Amino acid sequence: MSREIVIAAAQMGPNQRADSRRKIVQRMIALMEKAARCGAQLVVYPELALTTFFPRWYIKDTSEIDSFFETEMPGADTAPLFTRARELGITFSFGFAEKTEQAGGVHHFNTSVLVDKNSNIILRYRKIHIPGHSQYESWRPFQHLEKFYFKPGTEPFSTARLFDAEFSLAICNDRRWPETYREMALRGAEIALIGYNTPMHYAPMPSHDHLQSFHNHLCMQAGAYQNGLWVIGVAKAGLEEGCQLLGQTCIIAPTGEIAAQASSTDDEVILALCDIDRVKEIRENVFNFKHHRRPEMYPLLSRTS
Amino acid sequence: MSREIVIAAAQMGPNQRADSRRKIVQRMIALMEKAARCGAQLVVYPELALTTFFPRWYIKDTSEIDSFFETEMPGADTAPLFTRARELGITFSFGFAEKTEQAGGVHHFNTSVLVDKNSNIILRYRKIHIPGHSQYESWRPFQHLEKFYFKPGTEPFSTARLFDAEFSLAICNDRRWPETYREMALRGAEIALIGYNTPMHYAPMPSHDHLQSFHNHLCMQAGAYQNGLWVIGVAKAGLEEGCQLLGQTCIIAPTGEIAAQASSTDDEVILALCDIDRVKEIRENVFNFKHHRRPEMYPLLSRTS
Repeated sequence: MSREIVIAAAQMGPNQRADSRRKIVQRMIALMEKAARCGAQLVVYPELALTTFFPRWYIKDTSEIDSFFETEMPGADTAPLFTRARELGITFSFGFAEKTEQAGGVHHFNTSVLVDKNSNIILRYRKIHIPGHSQYESWRPFQHLEKFYFKPGTEPFSTARLFDAEFSLAICNDRRWPETYREMALRGAEIALIGYNTPMHYAPMPSHDHLQSFHNHLCMQAGAYQNGLWVIGVAKAGLEEGCQLLGQTCIIAPTGEIAAQASSTDDEVILALCDIDRVKEIRENVFNFKHHRRPEMYPLLSRTS
Repeated sequence: MSREIVIAAAQMGPNQRADSRRKIVQRMIALMEKAARCGAQLVVYPELALTTFFPRWYIKDTSEIDSFFETEMPGADTAPLFTRARELGITFSFGFAEKTEQAGGVHHFNTSVLVDKNSNIILRYRKIHIPGHSQYESWRPFQHLEKFYFKPGTEPFSTARLFDAEFSLAICNDRRWPETYREMALRGAEIALIGYNTPMHYAPMPSHDHLQSFHNHLCMQAGAYQNGLWVIGVAKAGLEEGCQLLGQTCIIAPTGEIAAQASSTDDEVILALCDIDRVKEIRENVFNFKHHRRPEMYPLLSRTS
């Protein structure tokens, strides 16, 4: 039985700070409707799709911080997205800032979810690799205060089944780490959905700015090939609050080849007919983990001290 | 104090089966002399530099098998290489088939060594990831019987200090595995020397043949960037006993950028002035393991059962 899925990556142009959640969700719905017209069964949006990338600012006021976070999903502003998806019979995934109560405390996570066609959240992932810094640094042209705003996820990567395939979620900086893809693949993942917001300017090493595009594809293509995964990498792109964000939204086959790529830094839908069985071309051959992997020779990879 | 090293990658054209060890070592010496003329302080040769890639054949006769293996290093045939290196004051690394006694048994490894300018072997590595198959398979146009000829190395990657820098060795298929580079880097490696013999034809999945060059660079460039390593990837290339071997010998900077690349599939020296301190550009920033890595979230990576 064929396991071909039409997957759309819905790149988003900038979300300015003044843009209302309602307006942003309307853009997401418009992208979903375009994708549905093209036969998409799944639409993937970027990290922090509902807001601007607020870690670029140091905000002290708690209620102002909280304005960027969701306390329920769907909430009043996001319900229309869930409703429209149900009408269209489409599944989707997107990232958002999540404020939640856990074990008696309030925690803030950088989260993404996978939603089935009945609007059920079947997978929730909280970003493991939080980049940037935890305190205001005056020398930077803009901040990258993810370590200030977000608690790192406390659960390893996991998978959920949809369309007879195994899905896993990762967010932005996670995609740079080979551990991300390998942990997913060892759990049986066949498709990784990865949203990102990546400034073109990397303040700690500006001489690498011109390499952002190269590094973005390099990590995702290597992760795809070395694990036989389909990788859906989805950008929030363009000039957001004076900060240029990388685009390059792409769909990468298990061979590491780019199957589709955005050609703008604005709202844009790209699609690919993803044959999930192509995972086997890699995972039953060159990267057959059972036959060729040597975990006893990797003692340091999981060592915590 | 500057840590700039002139490193030469000495790509080798084909070694035919009838070529004597003496003749092959003479070619290696000629490459070394060229590299020395260019100021090289280190010359890196490919995997199984001293012989043809014999795992392409199924050989039953033990003495014929043994003819491809070294029982001492240096031995009579390889001594001239060590002597010439000492005269030139040059360090070098190369791969060979090693037959050795260990714990009362005789073992065959796919091995590489790093030799200092006084001809001392300061690092010996036995290939961990043995690709291919362990029994004759009649359907293949040529065999890839590495699992028949070689016992997998029983020690993890390690490092040795030379020119005030930390070196690590890997061989061929090792370079495809992200675990290789990460284990090296977690041990403090700054430069990975990786020789290879890679047929352009991959019998289990011939539809990937046209991707050999892409995958070769993809894995080494990702390994370099994701670990902030200099990677010296050195091919045995060209048409060897009717089998086309991938070239693409290259020197890759810690940014993942290719700093030098071979433009032939024959004996060829390429060079780069490698500033080892550039490792810090990556490892003190985006891949600062201490600040950003989450080993407690990678429980499966080192799991052996």
